[in-house]
Amino acid sequence: MKLGMIGLGKMGMNLVLNLLDHQHEVVVYDVNPEPRQKLAEKGAIAADSVQALIADLPSPRVVWLMVPAGEIVDTLLQDILPQLQQGDIVIDGGNSHYKDSLRRSKQCAEKGIHFMDVGTSGGMEGAREGGCFMIGGDKEAFAHIEPLFRDLAVKDGYLYTGESGSGHFLKMVHNGIEYGMMQAIGEGFEVLDKSQFNYDYEDVARVWAHGSVIRGWLMDLTQNAFSKDPRLEGIRGVMHASGEGQWTVETALELKAAAPVIAMSLFMRYRSLEEDTFHGKVVAALRNEFGGHAVEKK
Amino acid sequence: MKLGMIGLGKMGMNLVLNLLDHQHEVVVYDVNPEPRQKLAEKGAIAADSVQALIADLPSPRVVWLMVPAGEIVDTLLQDILPQLQQGDIVIDGGNSHYKDSLRRSKQCAEKGIHFMDVGTSGGMEGAREGGCFMIGGDKEAFAHIEPLFRDLAVKDGYLYTGESGSGHFLKMVHNGIEYGMMQAIGEGFEVLDKSQFNYDYEDVARVWAHGSVIRGWLMDLTQNAFSKDPRLEGIRGVMHASGEGQWTVETALELKAAAPVIAMSLFMRYRSLEEDTFHGKVVAALRNEFGGHAVEKK
Amino acid sequence: MKLGMIGLGKMGMNLVLNLLDHQHEVVVYDVNPEPRQKLAEKGAIAADSVQALIADLPSPRVVWLMVPAGEIVDTLLQDILPQLQQGDIVIDGGNSHYKDSLRRSKQCAEKGIHFMDVGTSGGMEGAREGGCFMIGGDKEAFAHIEPLFRDLAVKDGYLYTGESGSGHFLKMVHNGIEYGMMQAIGEGFEVLDKSQFNYDYEDVARVWAHGSVIRGWLMDLTQNAFSKDPRLEGIRGVMHASGEGQWTVETALELKAAAPVIAMSLFMRYRSLEEDTFHGKVVAALRNEFGGHAVEKK
Amino acid sequence: MKLGMIGLGKMGMNLVLNLLDHQHEVVVYDVNPEPRQKLAEKGAIAADSVQALIADLPSPRVVWLMVPAGEIVDTLLQDILPQLQQGDIVIDGGNSHYKDSLRRSKQCAEKGIHFMDVGTSGGMEGAREGGCFMIGGDKEAFAHIEPLFRDLAVKDGYLYTGESGSGHFLKMVHNGIEYGMMQAIGEGFEVLDKSQFNYDYEDVARVWAHGSVIRGWLMDLTQNAFSKDPRLEGIRGVMHASGEGQWTVETALELKAAAPVIAMSLFMRYRSLEEDTFHGKVVAALRNEFGGHAVEKK
Repeated sequence: MKLGMIGLGKMGMNLVLNLLDHQHEVVVYDVNPEPRQKLAEKGAIAADSVQALIADLPSPRVVWLMVPAGEIVDTLLQDILPQLQQGDIVIDGGNSHYKDSLRRSKQCAEKGIHFMDVGTSGGMEGAREGGCFMIGGDKEAFAHIEPLFRDLAVKDGYLYTGESGSGHFLKMVHNGIEYGMMQAIGEGFEVLDKSQFNYDYEDVARVWAHGSVIRGWLMDLTQNAFSKDPRLEGIRGVMHASGEGQWTVETALELKAAAPVIAMSLFMRYRSLEEDTFHGKVVAALRNEFGGHAVEKK
Repeated sequence: MKLGMIGLGKMGMNLVLNLLDHQHEVVVYDVNPEPRQKLAEKGAIAADSVQALIADLPSPRVVWLMVPAGEIVDTLLQDILPQLQQGDIVIDGGNSHYKDSLRRSKQCAEKGIHFMDVGTSGGMEGAREGGCFMIGGDKEAFAHIEPLFRDLAVKDGYLYTGESGSGHFLKMVHNGIEYGMMQAIGEGFEVLDKSQFNYDYEDVARVWAHGSVIRGWLMDLTQNAFSKDPRLEGIRGVMHASGEGQWTVETALELKAAAPVIAMSLFMRYRSLEEDTFHGKVVAALRNEFGGHAVEKK
Repeated sequence: MKLGMIGLGKMGMNLVLNLLDHQHEVVVYDVNPEPRQKLAEKGAIAADSVQALIADLPSPRVVWLMVPAGEIVDTLLQDILPQLQQGDIVIDGGNSHYKDSLRRSKQCAEKGIHFMDVGTSGGMEGAREGGCFMIGGDKEAFAHIEPLFRDLAVKDGYLYTGESGSGHFLKMVHNGIEYGMMQAIGEGFEVLDKSQFNYDYEDVARVWAHGSVIRGWLMDLTQNAFSKDPRLEGIRGVMHASGEGQWTVETALELKAAAPVIAMSLFMRYRSLEEDTFHGKVVAALRNEFGGHAVEKK
Repeated sequence: MKLGMIGLGKMGMNLVLNLLDHQHEVVVYDVNPEPRQKLAEKGAIAADSVQALIADLPSPRVVWLMVPAGEIVDTLLQDILPQLQQGDIVIDGGNSHYKDSLRRSKQCAEKGIHFMDVGTSGGMEGAREGGCFMIGGDKEAFAHIEPLFRDLAVKDGYLYTGESGSGHFLKMVHNGIEYGMMQAIGEGFEVLDKSQFNYDYEDVARVWAHGSVIRGWLMDLTQNAFSKDPRLEGIRGVMHASGEGQWTVETALELKAAAPVIAMSLFMRYRSLEEDTFHGKVVAALRNEFGGHAVEKK
């Protein structure tokens, strides 16, 4: 199939390479010329502009956006919609908020264009070697693009999830679970690290990755991480977050679903972004007020 | 009543002054001669040793221990038990673990001595001006010492809680609640501090302390704290803990009681003791492994 | 001062009685004629409609809305704005979301009308006998209505909090803290209830309400509750929530503030609304899958 | 190797079958004659008593205990220690508390007997087909029994973890992580279940099990569970717990390690064991006291 890919960052780049491996024709564009160049050398067709990319696609056009969530998706849609025609398909493979995807699918539907919200999981490696895709949007449009996912995904690694928004919603929740799992693993190793025993963490991660109940890709990656830095001495425990965890908790609040583990995972990330906290100051000051307990001065 | 007080720290000192105000005779001892001296000037009888203190008391002797929780209570008990006689009363007014108090009450009961576990709340101010006392142990022994609590406590501020251990257990749970309340207050001010509004925190604490649902002594103290340092800029948010919060959570675990708020209050204290965390390193490393997200180097 | 009060539920009714006690003239309206009638007998001026109420007020008009948060506030504003003139003052004393208040204050400002967002705390008793008020909006408008709050509040029980939105924001956070405190108290009593000791909970609440660190109005109310039903056997532990706790957590998420205690308080409320949970089914099914642990059949 | 296995429940039974597959000679005993009989038919040597089992083993004897954690391990040790000799090896493959294992290893060491604490993971399937083993105790004794684990474990699925206690400690923490992961998965599906979308949960679990970041054995099992009961309608969400999660949290408390996710996983399990809660009653009663909010009567 011939399709366009807009956005050639870590994920977009790898998806294109993966598509090329499977004999798809990919017209590529990124604001940065470097990855365009690099992919052209690998067999992709580099376009000089979004307009050129669209112009090079046969009907019905398939345009895959692989850009950061947020306004840039809207900007791109505004750029390309005038050139698109009824029956064309726009895939948003990024981590957009499902409510934005719902809105955008309506916006596209007004022109008869199919907007597919596709959650992509599996990291950079998955994008390159075979990942996991959760695909929401019109079922007929899905049928047209299914061959792409059959090639991009590992076996059983793609799912048509139903109406618009359902793909990104599922990816959001996936990431919420991921937050919880990662924090659980982190807490476990912290208990080991504070214990009286002297474990080799790479060995621990390896044995847990083989045959245990908690085996899985995250444990494989834990083993990788420890193999490079046995006590993680070179890095700081600052846990950034890119949004989906927060959205999951916000969604849980809206739905009145108790999500203590996902929420605490997120709060520990926020906490890690701060050297000191105001709530801590208040509690320390209160202890001093009633009990005369010493406070630590700055 | 004539009684002995062993341990003249912040709390013991204030309790003796409170007792002296109410015309009790107090024989006092502390390993540190300074507070003995100071209290002698205020009308207490300073003893040079634990033995001298005991020797100076009429039967049935009432000996109040006001020392830190832990082995020192056992050491003192071993020191004084040989000198005590059937019907004498030992009060442990410190923050001992209720299981230790149960054990000690049995140890004392073998010699016919009453061991009273007394939880003391109200901070230094309460000890001096009128506090709150939760009293476990033999009911007859309680009847003998009740006049002390009638004088030391604010109105309705003491309670005979029943069998041995019940006084310290109640104080432990009180402190668990205190942890939760303080963390809740701290979180509230942190949200204010991160908000778009520019509140005067002393004013906020004052208005919340007057007429609101969350008014109470902790809010009065919050007002005090902000009156001294309007943004708490002089102190660090390191929240130490002296044990009762941990015991409350441990007890909740034993009893299979869900205590999420008290537990999270405690965990945030532990977290505040660390500049960086191992769980954070693990999560940061994992994000890097699967998504290529940058880690912060040390 | 002569003012109008729209909304005569539990809170509005009590505020009007409080205002009448302080010699204010209050024109009252509610969709329900009964409370209008009742207040007319107490000296208020009952209006037959919102329009009649407005028509009866001198310039600058002061109109106090005391209705549930949500669309009803917007509906009322739309009803009354055409009748209001530059310099008039609308007070929203309900629990509106601060973002709605910001929007409404802009909407009013376009017509030169002052919109004051007033957080009201202290419960029904506070409304009647003296409560706590957090007042955001134009400072000049505040100066005009300050006499009302001087009469309605307990001493030190009102605060001008600054720009529009700051009053309702502060009330929101107050309620978040309240959630945390209440859950902490609840957890404490649950630990007592599961313990080996046999406490009288009314006695416990009373002693904690007198002289302890955790004394305050919530503990007074705890004592009241146990005085009516010593083991709370007559009620179910279903904890409804009216929104501000959820907004506090949502705001914490937006501000990237760790608020574990407030969030867990909220989640335990959500949990209490359900007889069974889907997450529980998943975990139970998983335990069965890997370990053959029995599940409980429906 | 010829060894004895005491305890032929779900795990012990499967381990013996696995050992027999690998040409080990296994003398088996259980208080229940049925599994002895069954294993005898499969090639094991059934012993009529613990004493007969020990008597049938060559020196140095290898005796594997596979019984529930607790006093039964001590009782068995007392039964067999008199028959054992210097150099013999006792393996505790159950989920004993690591502090018990430390104590037992000292008890055995006094007689020159090696006590190996072996954490076993991988569920019944792992025991049968290849599991994960974390092995603490004397290194020389480990060398002697390593061939057993080479056969019983999947590749890279066993680890000598160091001194006594370290095997069971590691298994305990493994289970803590498992609690957190399972709760995270449960919360994710609960958000799906309360959402506006209509997912097929078996499909969701399948796609997440293939190529996603959260793929792993627990997700495979989630898929299995939904394949049998698509909405888990037949089971109740009661989440029992067998101890290791609680021990992990207790250990975190002792070590002053923040473990919010593991703790919340545990608390949600406790909560699921109750139809109603006392903390809920307290909070509901308080809401009624201050705000007149209706309580639900029993």
